[in-house]
Amino acid sequence: MANEKIPYKIYLEENEMPKAWYNVRADMKKKPAPLLNPGTLEPMKAEELAPVFCEELIAQELDNDTAYVEIPQEIRDFYKMYRPSPLVRAYCLEEKLGTPAKIYYKFEGNNTSGSHKLNSAIAQAYYAKKQGLKGVTTETGAGQWGTALSMACAYLGLDCKVYMVKVSYEQKPFRREVMRTYGASVVPSPSMDTNIGRKINAEHPGTGGSLGCAISEAVEVATSTPGYRYVLGSVLNQVLLHQSVIGLEAKAAMDKYGIKPDMIIGCAGGGSNLGGLISPFMGEKLRGENDYRIIAVEPASCPSFTRGVYAYDFCDTGMVCPLAKMYTLGCDFIPAPNHAGGLRYHGMSSILSELYDQGLMEARSVKQTDVFEAAEYFARCEGILPAPESSHAIRVAIDEALKCKETGEEKTILFGLTGTGYFDMVAYEKYNDGIMDDYIPTDEELAKYREKLPKVDK
Amino acid sequence: MANEKIPYKIYLEENEMPKAWYNVRADMKKKPAPLLNPGTLEPMKAEELAPVFCEELIAQELDNDTAYVEIPQEIRDFYKMYRPSPLVRAYCLEEKLGTPAKIYYKFEGNNTSGSHKLNSAIAQAYYAKKQGLKGVTTETGAGQWGTALSMACAYLGLDCKVYMVKVSYEQKPFRREVMRTYGASVVPSPSMDTNIGRKINAEHPGTGGSLGCAISEAVEVATSTPGYRYVLGSVLNQVLLHQSVIGLEAKAAMDKYGIKPDMIIGCAGGGSNLGGLISPFMGEKLRGENDYRIIAVEPASCPSFTRGVYAYDFCDTGMVCPLAKMYTLGCDFIPAPNHAGGLRYHGMSSILSELYDQGLMEARSVKQTDVFEAAEYFARCEGILPAPESSHAIRVAIDEALKCKETGEEKTILFGLTGTGYFDMVAYEKYNDGIMDDYIPTDEELAKYREKLPKVDK
Repeated sequence: MANEKIPYKIYLEENEMPKAWYNVRADMKKKPAPLLNPGTLEPMKAEELAPVFCEELIAQELDNDTAYVEIPQEIRDFYKMYRPSPLVRAYCLEEKLGTPAKIYYKFEGNNTSGSHKLNSAIAQAYYAKKQGLKGVTTETGAGQWGTALSMACAYLGLDCKVYMVKVSYEQKPFRREVMRTYGASVVPSPSMDTNIGRKINAEHPGTGGSLGCAISEAVEVATSTPGYRYVLGSVLNQVLLHQSVIGLEAKAAMDKYGIKPDMIIGCAGGGSNLGGLISPFMGEKLRGENDYRIIAVEPASCPSFTRGVYAYDFCDTGMVCPLAKMYTLGCDFIPAPNHAGGLRYHGMSSILSELYDQGLMEARSVKQTDVFEAAEYFARCEGILPAPESSHAIRVAIDEALKCKETGEEKTILFGLTGTGYFDMVAYEKYNDGIMDDYIPTDEELAKYREKLPKVDK
Repeated sequence: MANEKIPYKIYLEENEMPKAWYNVRADMKKKPAPLLNPGTLEPMKAEELAPVFCEELIAQELDNDTAYVEIPQEIRDFYKMYRPSPLVRAYCLEEKLGTPAKIYYKFEGNNTSGSHKLNSAIAQAYYAKKQGLKGVTTETGAGQWGTALSMACAYLGLDCKVYMVKVSYEQKPFRREVMRTYGASVVPSPSMDTNIGRKINAEHPGTGGSLGCAISEAVEVATSTPGYRYVLGSVLNQVLLHQSVIGLEAKAAMDKYGIKPDMIIGCAGGGSNLGGLISPFMGEKLRGENDYRIIAVEPASCPSFTRGVYAYDFCDTGMVCPLAKMYTLGCDFIPAPNHAGGLRYHGMSSILSELYDQGLMEARSVKQTDVFEAAEYFARCEGILPAPESSHAIRVAIDEALKCKETGEEKTILFGLTGTGYFDMVAYEKYNDGIMDDYIPTDEELAKYREKLPKVDK
């Protein structure tokens, strides 16, 4: 079909959908650094992780060698409800920009969770169910991951307990109600259900909570309740594995029409979407079969790739989780309150960190108002109102397309449109009212957090 | 492909998408009654409608004879951005219900307006642009239509002024912000911009407004501002014409796999979605080629088909618009405040009213809590969180599937899933909290409104 006119949207047929996830670690010569036990500083063993995570997910987490992991039939059936997601040719955006570049985006927002998170939520819920568990616990900030997990658990008849950062619980009641509609119990964190919650409430009366605190509560409940485990929506190797379905579908759709992207652009918070999107392309790059420019885009207000350090750090603010080697700003770092949307994690997936450190991908940081300008521009010509997170990728895709306009180059750009912004209208309102501003942390601030990094000589 | 396994979702190829809308009036032996001039009680002529509506849309409104109206290329290109919409086989719902019925739904919610409204919004905006107009005005209640029109106008570079019922403007700030993001000016109604607005504000200080008042304001601005016209998102013949794209796509997808529905179910407020969904099927029925059961579902709190009368009435509460013959509760009728979501129009499309009067379709009314029960059940197994409006159709589809379970009949059910409920979480919250109730108007109440119907001897 190479010379056929490319349709606006390419949907794979059901029988063309991926039957296995791709594990990019298998093709990395230098593997990502292992998780360390914060007490012994030795690599975490499966049995040490077993009280927290499901068995099969631990196996996936630690497996650096198996290139393809079969997607269980039950998960493939669930994927068929909302996948394949479309690969969209952005004809209208190209025309409005007047660029010779060819722009494609893989749109993951056409499901009720509103993002790519569902790809891993159903996998994690499935393995929990298969292990005979009664339920899972997790934390959620903005609510995308909590929503995705609630949907997956409702489908499988699994109990789902979500610790939602209290300030989000109160300010984002609609996300909370979506989760409740899917039968999840949503608890504002810090709660009075857990030791850590009671402690924090006692020490900081009236606190609005934090993601770190919510993680600690979710882990405490998972490890102290028989039949429960904790699940996490980003950062981990297992999550990147599940999210490879994004890239595998995108690549299959492009191959079908003989399209080869020159550059692949994705937003990066914890790294799950970007890691998933680029995985098969990165695989070709690692195996020397093809070359691609790969660009991670992060907010200037939370610049772990572009201004962080590559070091061992805690995955959570509460310092209860293992240590991971990653590009990090320090586990106490929290973006300024004016920062809208997600992408507020202090660190970055170990896999992506290692790939970045090896020079296999680039990173760029963008200012918030520039991101919303791109979001609005995109919405008005392509129809879809994008999530603030996804709009980071849109910003850089537009910038690169405008460079092509200057040089006349007909480059092919692929970017990840991870989700929709329907639950982010408070941020859009600020932008519409002209009261959104850009806070960028100073070097002094970043140095302060960096000082607190754990001393690990690895 | 008749014997192939039916996929979860059927997407037409781009070249299989409809190239013409279908006008069901062409196949009706007895045509729908014409709009009447409220002064003369004579059928409205094109020139009388010209100050309010765009020329080409008036032609479509009055054309009872042309069966197929070509969809202009520009509109077809816009359709390609968010269409074809999927025809979904509800395998998970069937399994959970344990029914031998085969359930399909045509899902119109995968676009940022969140509903089927965009199908007509782009058509109306296109004809306004083609006529050389500067902009359009409209009213919106819950905001779906206003959002759709804003998107269409942003795409075409047309000015868009939306009068939004003040109470919705304040209680649904997110819908308002979506419209603003698409560049529309959104004015809470009653405003101080118009004579009628100032009059209502003076007479009812602090009023929250009504759809009738917002219509009057939008019409006043359209008729008093050079280069502007008024557009409407439902009820009108032209809107049903544009919405026929839903049914044409659904039928093409079914034909491709040799599927013939036994019954077709849709929710009905003003009738645009139902009219669009059923049109090609009704055409076959009118021409005696095939038979289908067709069921309109309306809220028990606003039961124009099931408890209204077939008579001439005003289309708007303000009594400034022409008279239409339709099933109506009386133009002063407003559903009880506890009624959630849309489907609150006092009347019904003239086309559907005539078809119903001829016994070519059935109607059923359902209670609000039963609707939300079905919505939640559907969300948990099919993933999609449905709009309250659409959930009326889900309720009856489930009821019919359960009848099949009793009788063992393998009927094929097609229903219209018109949109998503992401902006309706206040209603879901009420349901989740168990404080939603069902108000059904008494016969005495309905009689009171019926007394005020204009006396028209036609």
